[in-house]
Formats: sequence, C-alpha cells, structure tokens
Amino acid sequence: MIDAEQRLSELGLKLPEAPQPVANYVPHLISNDQLFISGQIAKDGTGRVLTGLLGAGVSVEDGRTAARHAALNVLAQAKAALGSLDRIVQVLRVTGFVASAPGFTEQSAVINGASDLFVAVLGDAGRHTRSAVGVASLPLDTCVEIDAIVKIR
Amino acid sequence: MIDAEQRLSELGLKLPEAPQPVANYVPHLISNDQLFISGQIAKDGTGRVLTGLLGAGVSVEDGRTAARHAALNVLAQAKAALGSLDRIVQVLRVTGFVASAPGFTEQSAVINGASDLFVAVLGDAGRHTRSAVGVASLPLDTCVEIDAIVKIR
Amino acid sequence: MIDAEQRLSELGLKLPEAPQPVANYVPHLISNDQLFISGQIAKDGTGRVLTGLLGAGVSVEDGRTAARHAALNVLAQAKAALGSLDRIVQVLRVTGFVASAPGFTEQSAVINGASDLFVAVLGDAGRHTRSAVGVASLPLDTCVEIDAIVKIR
Repeated sequence: MIDAEQRLSELGLKLPEAPQPVANYVPHLISNDQLFISGQIAKDGTGRVLTGLLGAGVSVEDGRTAARHAALNVLAQAKAALGSLDRIVQVLRVTGFVASAPGFTEQSAVINGASDLFVAVLGDAGRHTRSAVGVASLPLDTCVEIDAIVKIR
Repeated sequence: MIDAEQRLSELGLKLPEAPQPVANYVPHLISNDQLFISGQIAKDGTGRVLTGLLGAGVSVEDGRTAARHAALNVLAQAKAALGSLDRIVQVLRVTGFVASAPGFTEQSAVINGASDLFVAVLGDAGRHTRSAVGVASLPLDTCVEIDAIVKIR
Repeated sequence: MIDAEQRLSELGLKLPEAPQPVANYVPHLISNDQLFISGQIAKDGTGRVLTGLLGAGVSVEDGRTAARHAALNVLAQAKAALGSLDRIVQVLRVTGFVASAPGFTEQSAVINGASDLFVAVLGDAGRHTRSAVGVASLPLDTCVEIDAIVKIR
C-alpha cells in the first residue's frame, strides 16, 4: 500500500486548503463506504482560479495544469473528510468538465492532468473510471471542474 | 428530525405531480439504501417548462427560480419513490446543468435555487455535495436540469 | 430472467471489443454490488468514431444511432468486467452527453438510442434512471458519450 502523504511530498506537491463552498452545499459527504466530493474548480495554491475556454485562449497544456489543480482540490477535500488519504481504497468515478470553445475535442488530454495526478499520488487506488466532456462554461469562469466518488475504508 | 411535508407546507410549497419520463427510462430507482433520480427539468406546477439560455435572455434570478422548480420535481420523484420524504437520510449528490450562453459563469448562483430548496425542506438531510456546470442546451429547451442520488432509510 | 447474450443475438447485434482507455484511467470498476463504467464514445464495430454536432450536420436519427453504438460499448465494458451480462441486476444510472449546436434541444430523442438498446437487450434490468444533456463538444469529436452505474450480482 502506498503512503499517499509521503508520495505527495516526494512529488513536491502540497495539498491546498480544502476550498469552502460558497453556497448552501457541502464539499464532501460519507455514506457507508463511499465518499462523495463536490465539483472542484481549478483554483491553485494561491487561491487564483485558472480561467478561460479550451480552444479559445487556453492551451491543452494549460488545461492539463488546471485539471491537476482541480484534482489536488479533490484530494484536499478527501483529506478534510477522512483525516488521511490512506483511507482511500479506490477512486471509483471521476467526471471531468472542460470549458470548451466550439470545435475543441481534446478533453481527454486535458483531464489526463487529473487522472495522472490521482495515480501518481494514490497508485493503483487512484485508477478510476471517468467521463470527460466539453461544457459551454463553468462557475467563476474556471476552465476545468472535477468531481469524484471514492471508496473508503 | 424535520417533518419535510410539514416544512413544505410552512414554506407555502406544494409538490407537483412527479413528471413521467417521455422515453424508455424510469424517473427513480432504489438500490439498497440509495435512491437514484433521473434528471428533472424546470417544469413548474402548471406543466410549463422554463426555457432559454442563461446569459442570453434568462436572468440569474429567473434561472434560480427554474432551479427551484427542477428541485421540486426531484422531491416529487423522491416522494413517488419512497411514499414519504421522511425516508430521506441525506441528499448525497446533486448535479446541476445550466443551459448557458458563451461567457456565462454564474452557474453556482443559479443552482443555489435548488440547493437552498433542498435545505429549506429537508434541513440538514438536504445538505448535499454538488457539481454545477454550464451546458450548451438541454431537452425541451429547459434552462436547468437537476439530478440526484439520495440516501434513504 | 432474460438471457442477455441470447437477446443480443436475436437482435442481430454483436458486442464490439471493449474499447481500451487511451489514458490513465480504467474502463470499469466494481465496488460491492455496483459496477462503474467510464464514458463510452460512439465508436462503431469497425472502430470508426461517429462525429459532429447535433443541430449542425448530425441528424437526430444519426445521433440516435451514435447513442446506440455508445450503449453497445457500455455493454461491452460490462461484459468485460463481469464475464457475462447476466450478472447485471439493474442499470441504475445513465448519463447521456450529446454534442449540441446552440439551439438543439432534442437530446432526449438522441439518448433514446441508448435507452432503447439497454431495455431491448436486458429487459426490465435495462430500465434505468438517466440524465440527457447537450454539451459543447466531446473527446475525439464523438457526437454522443454515455456512462453508467450498474447494480450487479
């Protein structure tokens, strides 16, 4: 079993503060052995939101970085919910929403920024099913939003 | 524990008839302690669908009202599935799809119309995880669609 | 109980090879009695992706065919995960993403191509809750993407 916290530190990564929802919902909920995590936007460690549309000003590479930040926020919420990432058995489902200009079709490459991070930090427990889709726009103009359902112990 | 039916009546709200799907799917399914509810559109109590795009003719305030109607339809489906809303333990997951013109980024404010309703009617059991995203368009031109997974007793 | 494999053959259908993900995620995961299936695109039996936007070049009828192919890929993943489709107790949740030009609002008619297939092959076990939404664009320019959560024995 991988020590996720140690892996984060080996990767030179630090979990951000788990973002607080700005409305009447909660960032995470546990039901039996499932942890539901609300859609996380691409807010970086300084609190700046990575904005814009893929295919209209935001490059695939910048999108991938944004997806990585959104995924770090998913992990930050998991840690806030669980105390330790080591309680994660498996990331079951990831939905990746990519703010996309008409004709942009590389959502998979963008959401890989999140998928790669989950596997880098959690090992096999980070290997998930996913859907990647291109949406018209996202809250606060974030270019990527990621939500997840996680199996926990 | 809140009496959801009484709360609805105190709020001056009445659940609409649970809308029937117009195709080969079902509006709700129970599996163990989870209730899955199909995406509900913003049909008001008279059967009229609230239509259009946020950011192109539909105001945030009108979008919020639409989200509230979609959420009432989610509750109507829950009641049809469960007999009583009091069997709801927790609304686990809400996805809020907002039909959005390019550049519209206030999906959170719109979906608050649904989130606030769930909490007003169900109290803490209505506090959910959620994702709010801006889509290109929705069935029957509805401006908001809401689906949910609910933990039940 | 329906024999799904026999039903497929009676319908003159053959499951395609279960498509391999092109990135760092998995096509299916089992957790307790739930099977999660990644978003499947509209790749037909020859490996060709059905592309384009509904409402801008792709007809509702072609979209329905695309949704049917995406649903066949969902079943192919289920069979790869389970060995036999007869382990499916119920398709619980389907999300249907339709690549939609502005103003296209017949996502329900399109996703019926998937819903009808699930019911044709699985009988009552194929009757699912669903959300159908119109997105800006999808990976590899597919015109339909379908994901699912399935209850299994």
